[in-house]
Amino acid sequence: MKKIVSAGEIVVEIMADRLDQSLAEPGLLHGPFPSGAPAIFIGQAARLGQPAGLISAVGEDDFGQMNIDRLRNWGADVSAVTVHKGQATGTAFVAYRADGSRHFVFNIKNSAAGLMEIGHAAQALLAGADHFHVMGSSLFSERAIAVILAGIETIKRQGGTVSFDPNIRKEMIELPGMREALNQVLARTDLFLPSGEELFIFTKAADEASAVAEMLGQGISAVIVKKGSEGAVYYDRHRRVPAIGFSVQEVDPTGAGDCFGAGFVTHWLRGAKPEEALRFACACGALAVTRKGPMEGIATFGDVQAFISNSTEGSSS
Amino acid sequence: MKKIVSAGEIVVEIMADRLDQSLAEPGLLHGPFPSGAPAIFIGQAARLGQPAGLISAVGEDDFGQMNIDRLRNWGADVSAVTVHKGQATGTAFVAYRADGSRHFVFNIKNSAAGLMEIGHAAQALLAGADHFHVMGSSLFSERAIAVILAGIETIKRQGGTVSFDPNIRKEMIELPGMREALNQVLARTDLFLPSGEELFIFTKAADEASAVAEMLGQGISAVIVKKGSEGAVYYDRHRRVPAIGFSVQEVDPTGAGDCFGAGFVTHWLRGAKPEEALRFACACGALAVTRKGPMEGIATFGDVQAFISNSTEGSSS
Repeated sequence: MKKIVSAGEIVVEIMADRLDQSLAEPGLLHGPFPSGAPAIFIGQAARLGQPAGLISAVGEDDFGQMNIDRLRNWGADVSAVTVHKGQATGTAFVAYRADGSRHFVFNIKNSAAGLMEIGHAAQALLAGADHFHVMGSSLFSERAIAVILAGIETIKRQGGTVSFDPNIRKEMIELPGMREALNQVLARTDLFLPSGEELFIFTKAADEASAVAEMLGQGISAVIVKKGSEGAVYYDRHRRVPAIGFSVQEVDPTGAGDCFGAGFVTHWLRGAKPEEALRFACACGALAVTRKGPMEGIATFGDVQAFISNSTEGSSS
Repeated sequence: MKKIVSAGEIVVEIMADRLDQSLAEPGLLHGPFPSGAPAIFIGQAARLGQPAGLISAVGEDDFGQMNIDRLRNWGADVSAVTVHKGQATGTAFVAYRADGSRHFVFNIKNSAAGLMEIGHAAQALLAGADHFHVMGSSLFSERAIAVILAGIETIKRQGGTVSFDPNIRKEMIELPGMREALNQVLARTDLFLPSGEELFIFTKAADEASAVAEMLGQGISAVIVKKGSEGAVYYDRHRRVPAIGFSVQEVDPTGAGDCFGAGFVTHWLRGAKPEEALRFACACGALAVTRKGPMEGIATFGDVQAFISNSTEGSSS
């Protein structure tokens, strides 16, 4: 089976209890939950039985250990997650607003995650890998961008493939070097997995079909537009394959897009048809939202299969 | 009235809900609470009506703003609390253990607090100050140590006084440069406020009376040994004045020693007798533990007076 590698932030997430709860006053919180978009992706891929590893860095503290244990227990390769004494593992405090948006207080760039690098362990991990997945959220510093671009180059040199989930908040696009980094990643991308508005960050076109056509014209093999609970649409040069999402009771949407991505990429690497990969990916995303915490709803291959079997919905339409 | 300045960490504190709760797994948390030992001290001093200001640094985030607002609302001078874009305000996660000890996950040294400096605002604050208070916890980096030593020198040059609460966990003593820094501070200290075991960090003597005598022999004017709920004992070259603590329902002991210190130092600066200063300080400490959160139990001068009046305990014995 093909091995997936990603590089980026490991954090713990601390969630406000109530909608519209302020992070500027004391209240009830839930956490620390293991988190970080690339960690969620690699965790889901590993739990589906795919060989998968992460290049990252944590502090020598409970939060870093929890994340490493979680990934290791699910079978992920954590040999390139370095532990830095005297540094703190990244944190993300989040409060949901009634309008569905989220408000964050982050410590990532100046956390241990900011020290990730292509050392011996990362080199060894990349040498044995076939696919590199990029989370846009991981392009948070010059150093992080350099690590990710180096990872992409190594995999491409080995004849591997690259997937890219922009996964960025709008305000990040204007950070110095961000747009250039996004474009550099995009130029090497085989599978592009934007959600909602993210598609239009990269195109002149203002409607989905034209925007996708524009991206496919730039050399991307396939674009998968994620639409949350509504499902997703797969596009390549020949086909448009829509899929309807599974209906579940949403507890916490954080991480669902990352789980969807891992579900799709693992199936794509296994040579599955787009219909099948989409259906599985939608099921991973649906299960992810049923639990509080970004990684708590990550299911095994068997559990996802059982969920699909027991469902009358979610078939590609 | 004399103006007090301190320099050190501003953090938010996030508290585990249960005794012995692990910080390495998701659970119920309370916070973010404004915190940081020097911030608690200056907050309590200001709320007692004493001119008081803090040299510190926070990130441009909700946590930094909450701390600044809290201090400002209580009348503290926050002109030398700098706000750093792209940096995170410090955090301290804490879980209480059944044996009364505490377990922490800190981000202080590499948070915005690590960037505190003697800039123009700090110079102006110190120029108008009469007393400098040192929290041992604030000696967390070479840079922080340099800021504190510079503050002490300025105040001493102006003819002012220095108080010092070692307020350190044992494992901190072996940090590079820590013992030297503690000794440098101690050599300039007028009022020394150790609690429990901290007295013996600095002495050869193994019993309280001999240890205090040893410290007074080194030029310290007065030693106040803090004993938590049991009270405190004041020593100078002429006298030993014990005080019994007030009996209250303890909700959260964090910050009580800092509030005690602020209560004592403000009264000492106002020329109060040791008996009176101790009684007031014990009352500040007692009120501090009645609320969850390090600064939530900080009371006004009037409230502390009312508490003492309504109490039959806590008199110096």
